[in-house]
Amino acid sequence: MTPNRIPPLTKTSTVNKQTVNLSPQLKLVEAEMALVEALLRSNLIDGNAYIEKLLEQIFISGGKRIRPLLAILVSKACFNSDLYFSRNHIIHASLAELIHTASLVHDDVIDNADLRRGKTTLNHAKSDKLAVLMGDLLFAQASVCLSRLMYPEIVGIYGQVLGDLCSGEIKQMLSAFNTDITLNQYIDKSIGKTASLFSAATTGGAIINQVSNHTLINLKQFGLNLGICFQIVDDLLDLIGNAKDLGKPLGNDLLNGVITAPAIFVLNQKDDTAQTLKALIENQSVTELANLEKARQIILNTDAINKTIKLADKYAKLSLANLDVLPDSQYKEALKQIVNQILSQVD
Amino acid sequence: MTPNRIPPLTKTSTVNKQTVNLSPQLKLVEAEMALVEALLRSNLIDGNAYIEKLLEQIFISGGKRIRPLLAILVSKACFNSDLYFSRNHIIHASLAELIHTASLVHDDVIDNADLRRGKTTLNHAKSDKLAVLMGDLLFAQASVCLSRLMYPEIVGIYGQVLGDLCSGEIKQMLSAFNTDITLNQYIDKSIGKTASLFSAATTGGAIINQVSNHTLINLKQFGLNLGICFQIVDDLLDLIGNAKDLGKPLGNDLLNGVITAPAIFVLNQKDDTAQTLKALIENQSVTELANLEKARQIILNTDAINKTIKLADKYAKLSLANLDVLPDSQYKEALKQIVNQILSQVD
Repeated sequence: MTPNRIPPLTKTSTVNKQTVNLSPQLKLVEAEMALVEALLRSNLIDGNAYIEKLLEQIFISGGKRIRPLLAILVSKACFNSDLYFSRNHIIHASLAELIHTASLVHDDVIDNADLRRGKTTLNHAKSDKLAVLMGDLLFAQASVCLSRLMYPEIVGIYGQVLGDLCSGEIKQMLSAFNTDITLNQYIDKSIGKTASLFSAATTGGAIINQVSNHTLINLKQFGLNLGICFQIVDDLLDLIGNAKDLGKPLGNDLLNGVITAPAIFVLNQKDDTAQTLKALIENQSVTELANLEKARQIILNTDAINKTIKLADKYAKLSLANLDVLPDSQYKEALKQIVNQILSQVD
Repeated sequence: MTPNRIPPLTKTSTVNKQTVNLSPQLKLVEAEMALVEALLRSNLIDGNAYIEKLLEQIFISGGKRIRPLLAILVSKACFNSDLYFSRNHIIHASLAELIHTASLVHDDVIDNADLRRGKTTLNHAKSDKLAVLMGDLLFAQASVCLSRLMYPEIVGIYGQVLGDLCSGEIKQMLSAFNTDITLNQYIDKSIGKTASLFSAATTGGAIINQVSNHTLINLKQFGLNLGICFQIVDDLLDLIGNAKDLGKPLGNDLLNGVITAPAIFVLNQKDDTAQTLKALIENQSVTELANLEKARQIILNTDAINKTIKLADKYAKLSLANLDVLPDSQYKEALKQIVNQILSQVD
């Protein structure tokens, strides 16, 4: 968090940050996460074996499973009890991952991506056609999960999440290479892209547990603040992370005209540096790799990275404060550790 | 319905069938349909004006609105009363059209279509990327509608519909050019592609009206039988309709390896004609226009068209019988007229 922990600002600098390691937290609810994993790979629509095989392929490629993990841990942490844990919690946790995965499958079609997490994407391995349909099918699986829960309130929350995800992506598309974006608009976009689903994941299980309204509001905020923090960190890693870990070139967001917190901090300076960066983005010079690296170095040579880390830290602290509403337990501890793990990637 | 009403089987024969005209039925519930239309074009997710404009563009291109029309008419016909009509019925009717439209928007991306109903498709006018996202957004709008209804039973029905739609398309893709398809499998596929959503549309409003279980079962079957009839007619028009009305070449299904009822009837003959058709399909010769026309003429020169019309007629009759459960009313009459209108395209 302190300036001396920022990577040296050389032209080739990347930082070998600690990657998120959620193993201890996953271990704590291992049996529950295994049930989630099995549900994710089940064909809930019909008995078609080919579709089940496709689901298996989609989910075997991994992912951190942070959304269902949050959902399960919050469910357990509400009353520090295993007594209230029902099949509904498993269904809800799976639902959060289904929606996340559906959006990734469609993102890969949209971006014409051939690799995700080091594995061949569905659109690349099979076809765009099948990937669009399988993304839709994952949304359908999520709808079936929603209907099994029988909680209209949760249906409403996830309906809004779905809308936020699409609307966030559409807005990002529309504002590509537009340097007028404010920090508030960036936070709003991060809510739509990420924090809305995080918040749903930390809320659904609590609704099933029938917690007090005060607890519910705090758990909702916990997910929202953590989601914003997660997105800020993710965007920062795109500039200063390890290209190999990321599986894409550094500065990939800028390359696509997506302007994130660090660039916004520079642009807000309204000085010559800001003007240079503004020009590089607005005339789309950043789509050439040499100019992209130039833009990246401009950002690294200001204190924008520090400011961004502080911003992520602010949301991490807010999310930790939201957890005060919960009784002390190993589950609450695990939730705190997840917040710190996310932040540790950049601090 | 009689053989002499079948088009002359010349090489260039197409039939100028009566196109579906639902004007009198739409007129009967004009005010309600106007509310549906307004809801379809509303951005239920956020205040973004650009998204609202896109919705406007998507829905202005028309469509018969048969699904919401069925939903509204059934709602009114349950007790032949306007008293029980609530905002929920409008939301439910819109939901059925939202899901239908979402699947069309994605179909156009998948098929790389540039025209639908004579208007430029979204993928062609803007981009595949935006069309995938807008399809997802339409699903999200449907989810928001579902959550507003607060009927977990309806959530379950539409969750299954979504799954049936995707699974039906995936199965169709997998079985392209496979002549082993049976008539039962074809009917199953038609349920997934079409009848499942028709059935949801004729059921949702009845659930909101709290009709008896006996009535509900019949209304569910009404939608299912009508949907199967609709799909059979649609598939038949692909072979014998007016290419200009269809906006695609005759035999487009066969061209894509999609085997429908008329072809199945020929293949089931297990004679030399069946063998010739089988070979044309299995070695994918039908992807060449001359061979496609050859295959089409083979089908037209058997009584497969007659048999298909009889099949559509069977499901039309079944659907009309399901309506016996309703009290006599102008709404019930309108529902009957819709069945007959659909069938009149080919009889």
